[in-house]
Amino acid sequence: MSNVIATYQVFGDQESFEKKAEGIALGLTVGSWTDLPALDQEQLKKYRGTVVSIQDLGFHELASFAKNKKTASAHVKISYPSRNFSADIPAILTTVFGKLSLDGMVRLIDLEFEGEIARAFPGPRYGIEGIRDLVGVYHRPLVMSIFKGVLGRDMEFLSKQLKDQALGGMDLVKDDEILFDNVLTPFIERIKKGKHVLNQVYEETGHRTLYAVNLSGRTSLLKDQAKRAKEAGADAFLFNVFTYGLDVLQELREDSEIALPIMTHPSFSGAISGSSLFGVHYQLILGKLVRLTGADLSLFPSPYGSVALPKEDALLIAEALTGESPFKTSFPVPSAGIHPGLVPQLIHDFGKDQVINAGGGVHGHPDGAVAGGKSFRQAVDSIIEGKSLEDVLDEKKELKTAIATWGSVEVKK
Amino acid sequence: MSNVIATYQVFGDQESFEKKAEGIALGLTVGSWTDLPALDQEQLKKYRGTVVSIQDLGFHELASFAKNKKTASAHVKISYPSRNFSADIPAILTTVFGKLSLDGMVRLIDLEFEGEIARAFPGPRYGIEGIRDLVGVYHRPLVMSIFKGVLGRDMEFLSKQLKDQALGGMDLVKDDEILFDNVLTPFIERIKKGKHVLNQVYEETGHRTLYAVNLSGRTSLLKDQAKRAKEAGADAFLFNVFTYGLDVLQELREDSEIALPIMTHPSFSGAISGSSLFGVHYQLILGKLVRLTGADLSLFPSPYGSVALPKEDALLIAEALTGESPFKTSFPVPSAGIHPGLVPQLIHDFGKDQVINAGGGVHGHPDGAVAGGKSFRQAVDSIIEGKSLEDVLDEKKELKTAIATWGSVEVKK
Ligand SMILES: [Mg+2]
Ligand SMILES: [Mg+2]
Repeated sequence: MSNVIATYQVFGDQESFEKKAEGIALGLTVGSWTDLPALDQEQLKKYRGTVVSIQDLGFHELASFAKNKKTASAHVKISYPSRNFSADIPAILTTVFGKLSLDGMVRLIDLEFEGEIARAFPGPRYGIEGIRDLVGVYHRPLVMSIFKGVLGRDMEFLSKQLKDQALGGMDLVKDDEILFDNVLTPFIERIKKGKHVLNQVYEETGHRTLYAVNLSGRTSLLKDQAKRAKEAGADAFLFNVFTYGLDVLQELREDSEIALPIMTHPSFSGAISGSSLFGVHYQLILGKLVRLTGADLSLFPSPYGSVALPKEDALLIAEALTGESPFKTSFPVPSAGIHPGLVPQLIHDFGKDQVINAGGGVHGHPDGAVAGGKSFRQAVDSIIEGKSLEDVLDEKKELKTAIATWGSVEVKK
Repeated sequence: MSNVIATYQVFGDQESFEKKAEGIALGLTVGSWTDLPALDQEQLKKYRGTVVSIQDLGFHELASFAKNKKTASAHVKISYPSRNFSADIPAILTTVFGKLSLDGMVRLIDLEFEGEIARAFPGPRYGIEGIRDLVGVYHRPLVMSIFKGVLGRDMEFLSKQLKDQALGGMDLVKDDEILFDNVLTPFIERIKKGKHVLNQVYEETGHRTLYAVNLSGRTSLLKDQAKRAKEAGADAFLFNVFTYGLDVLQELREDSEIALPIMTHPSFSGAISGSSLFGVHYQLILGKLVRLTGADLSLFPSPYGSVALPKEDALLIAEALTGESPFKTSFPVPSAGIHPGLVPQLIHDFGKDQVINAGGGVHGHPDGAVAGGKSFRQAVDSIIEGKSLEDVLDEKKELKTAIATWGSVEVKK
């Protein structure tokens, strides 16, 4: 027996939930039931969706306001037999949230994959352990930074930024997600020149930085583009999965001729997950589903910046990326608004197995991006060694300047 | 000069809109501006996003409740130079609504394609005129019906349903969007058997019905699957575009070896468009973007059923599918909750160039689906001939029974 179990948040009168749940279970599978002849019921029962549970969550304020009447919400779990769909994300999403997504206020919270259907998915090729092997760092969070202000800039500008970030000690540097293949900094040239710069830094310093290039363009050309990138020496890919489709991510992951780490960007996911009354919960799309379909690293909004997720949601995403599962774990990358003073809070919240990712917090350092990078590494090292940031400020001048610039935060437990 | 102009609905203090608009225009392009040296400004100005207009929409009730303070909204238009992205939907959506979708309450309302960038998109291959040529019907709305309750059923069951719908006079019959390739009714067998049944009906009655089969499976296999389908005699495809990606639709449309009509299903689009505070407006994704990327017919929720869109939104979708544009028009298919008594209202609202699409309204007819189909054709013919439904009830017994079952509605102007 193999099933996909969907958890929905539904809204309405408390007495309506049972009927609503039954309506979903039938409406998204066999259509009707009680008016079917017994013989048809016998034939169709293994295709029928079933209500697993209904958990009343009580009065819901925003839903009540939206409906202009007292409205409650509930978590409803429905089990769908896997025989109803082909073993791919488009078929599963169409089944469990195709028509239903259009049915007024309703939210898809979780999907569980029971039995054989889970084996249809690859999970990450590298995962946290594999990425750690690539960078040779095991005892601390990885540190990543992002190119900044690169539209309209040439290879020289990018190379300089890349070099500074590498010299600052970054484990990973990623493209800006809005940098596509373009005449000033063409995709393959970025990879080749980037490789050259990073090899130079490695020879000078012994530090190895991986560069994640933005894999973009038309869908059917992505695999070829990825293979050309690999030949040109690419380390890893950044991928705007939600403007393509999760199945496209999965196909990139599965192609053994590509076989490079994939970092998914949350761009456009706010359109699917921003509302608390509609769409799909962030933990499912930025957590479980990107892990299932093959993201080695998943970027998501941190709970600290101006573009912020509620902390509860950010923690749920990280849990979905790293918790118990038949798949390898994916690196959580809480992003936006990150500066060195937040490192103690980041490690408190997300632990050792995360990638600390900064843009402005590296490039905006008063002494430049090299110092910005160093300040992050100093902050991480001090916390991992069991010291507070204050303990080390006198020896670590880059960190001291960073803290003077952005401040430090009292860790909220 | 080529640009993509995005219209957003933003929320906040009325005095904040100008700054917010400027922040979007810069943040999604060159990043910063005032602190750049004059030389850099000179170099970057052709990459810079610009604020085209800000239209204050006044106090917004739901947004105010959500923010727990008096909140207004505005339509903000921003122009993005096309040189910033590759000419594909993933790059455009990433640019205009990638990071921004995650930035609290904000909604993407429209995209305008100015200059050369519009030529990157194909539009429908057939469009309304091409589909009319295929079915040979020019003077009235087309009529379509949907298979019902087909999960767990065999070819014989499907064939019987198809035959009844064709005998009822349907111009098109579409697969249920949750029917994938499966052992009981395999994809290619559905096409072959369907063709056989529809040819029989044509020989018997002279009426030609097209069958839109659900094109599904892994993304990279869709084109081959479509070509196999064409060889097997497929008439048209149903496609769950929002669980794949708009670029996948475009690639299917562009492949001249496929070259069959494509009908897009709105499944999962509610996750992107259901909220009035987040996501993308229905008119853009179910209207303009599916037309741009190649849908010959676009299904969307009608404003009449239980799964209903506000009428204003449904009309905007239809307008986006059929209005002034460099592309062929796409057939609007307002769906769900349609019965023959609604035909006068449907024609009043959506005109002659629509597909009237019913499931329950055909199969639920007390005398069966053949009678159900006929009742729709009778209703359509009477309105097109300038008669009311009441005028013809005495001659048209199938329609009379349908009206007795579902009632008729007073046309709301
Ligand atoms: Mg960015
Ligand atoms: Mg259906």
